[in-house]
Amino acid sequence: MNIGIIGVGLIGGSFARALRRADTSMHIMGIDRDAASLAVAQEMGVIDEAASPAAAAQCDVILLAVPVRQIPLVLADVFPFLTGETVITDAGSTKQDVVAAARAVLGDRISQFVPGHPIAGREHAGVGASDADLFQGKNVVLTPLPENAGPSIERVRSLWQACGAHVVEMTAEAHDAVFAAVSHLPHLLAFALVDELAARPNAKTFFSFAASGFRDFTRIAGSSPEMWRDIALNNRDALLRELTAHETSIANLKAALVSSDGHALESLMTRAKHARDRWMAGELDGFRDEAT
Amino acid sequence: MNIGIIGVGLIGGSFARALRRADTSMHIMGIDRDAASLAVAQEMGVIDEAASPAAAAQCDVILLAVPVRQIPLVLADVFPFLTGETVITDAGSTKQDVVAAARAVLGDRISQFVPGHPIAGREHAGVGASDADLFQGKNVVLTPLPENAGPSIERVRSLWQACGAHVVEMTAEAHDAVFAAVSHLPHLLAFALVDELAARPNAKTFFSFAASGFRDFTRIAGSSPEMWRDIALNNRDALLRELTAHETSIANLKAALVSSDGHALESLMTRAKHARDRWMAGELDGFRDEAT
Repeated sequence: MNIGIIGVGLIGGSFARALRRADTSMHIMGIDRDAASLAVAQEMGVIDEAASPAAAAQCDVILLAVPVRQIPLVLADVFPFLTGETVITDAGSTKQDVVAAARAVLGDRISQFVPGHPIAGREHAGVGASDADLFQGKNVVLTPLPENAGPSIERVRSLWQACGAHVVEMTAEAHDAVFAAVSHLPHLLAFALVDELAARPNAKTFFSFAASGFRDFTRIAGSSPEMWRDIALNNRDALLRELTAHETSIANLKAALVSSDGHALESLMTRAKHARDRWMAGELDGFRDEAT
Repeated sequence: MNIGIIGVGLIGGSFARALRRADTSMHIMGIDRDAASLAVAQEMGVIDEAASPAAAAQCDVILLAVPVRQIPLVLADVFPFLTGETVITDAGSTKQDVVAAARAVLGDRISQFVPGHPIAGREHAGVGASDADLFQGKNVVLTPLPENAGPSIERVRSLWQACGAHVVEMTAEAHDAVFAAVSHLPHLLAFALVDELAARPNAKTFFSFAASGFRDFTRIAGSSPEMWRDIALNNRDALLRELTAHETSIANLKAALVSSDGHALESLMTRAKHARDRWMAGELDGFRDEAT
């Protein structure tokens, strides 16, 4: 099987290494506008071949592992070379916007595009940080389109499973709503909290006394600003709904404090601690599970 | 030197172990309403003697290492036995309320009370989790009172230094403002975020896809609800100011999203990342340092 990987960085490189380990007969072609990065990937043995977009004609599956805003550009690059047999998937953190962009470029060929999102990452970017184990035991969300044929979805699913991932399907809308809540909102809050403190006239005093709780709470504020700017803009509507829900939480906290309502505060904290303890223990059955 | 420790849990036990290691001539008396816990501490060799409040008469220094709301009770227990030579200090996470409570109990003897707060903790409580290294390299904040004599402050300072801590002084007001921002607000936000998600009808889906960013952001929501209820109530005014500042941050984020202002979002995220990276590298000189 010929695999094309557009963007051989942390995600694309890890996908290549995991697939090669699972099946040595795979031929992996790297396609990247950054020739130096491709040369490194080839030297590391991550890819078999540094290829141009024309190589898309030989690919059974192409993974787009570039920043989301580049997806329309790289799709346009390979579009002239696509056969009807190639399945394309992606690794973008948002899905509704990627689907819209893919529809605009691919037109009738949208049936060949199976949107995906591996829930895995590292603090360090680039092929040098790639790891065959990056997806081991992690979730990969596919958000198939009505136009996708079953075998196309199955081909993408089996590749991620070969990487050791657990593959689940949901709609692009559900995906964006879920990740706005459990990932995008926390990132925005962490960035905003650090920025607000750093802007204070006596910021040095605050940072002098920040300890391990602050360190972990704000770890995700060390993430890539460019990537998170794009995620925020690309998932704007869901994120605005989450920010509004968060404002309600803050208003409730303030009301409990203003009235010195220790019972309300302790109840909230106890519910939160129990929920988090259950989640950390992998016990999800206690959570509410009505229609998503 | 005779040291009395009231509340021989994680903090009191670690203080005892660190002092003993630094100076084997210290005689350490544990005072705790929980006799079983004292017996364990004695069996572990953490304390030399399980004592009653009357032992306060023999103490050079007494550390109050009980939950903040119990401080008035334990002060009242030892008050009848205090000589004019004993210096009392505490380990409470809030300071203005502790000072007010100490004044109410101690009256004219308030000069013997030197308020303190070691910036160290663990997820697990109790003497079993105590560790002679808990305070090594950590900050201990003292918030001396106008009534404190220099040698009283010095006696408390030297004990914490013997534990390996870095001792700094500030006013109780400054202490409470700083920790509202860098500790109490993040805790409240983490508790509120987890509780809000867990209450949703489809909570299970959200928690199924929460990953390492969520895990670290919400780690502090695994803390003791009783302790954090008290901290929130005891530092209510400073915390309300922080919540209001956070509401302004949220409003700014929403405005940037509504207008799809990628430049504003990226600027905020870049400032936050740089500030956090500097802080993690221990480079505090780049931070603003006007009057606290």
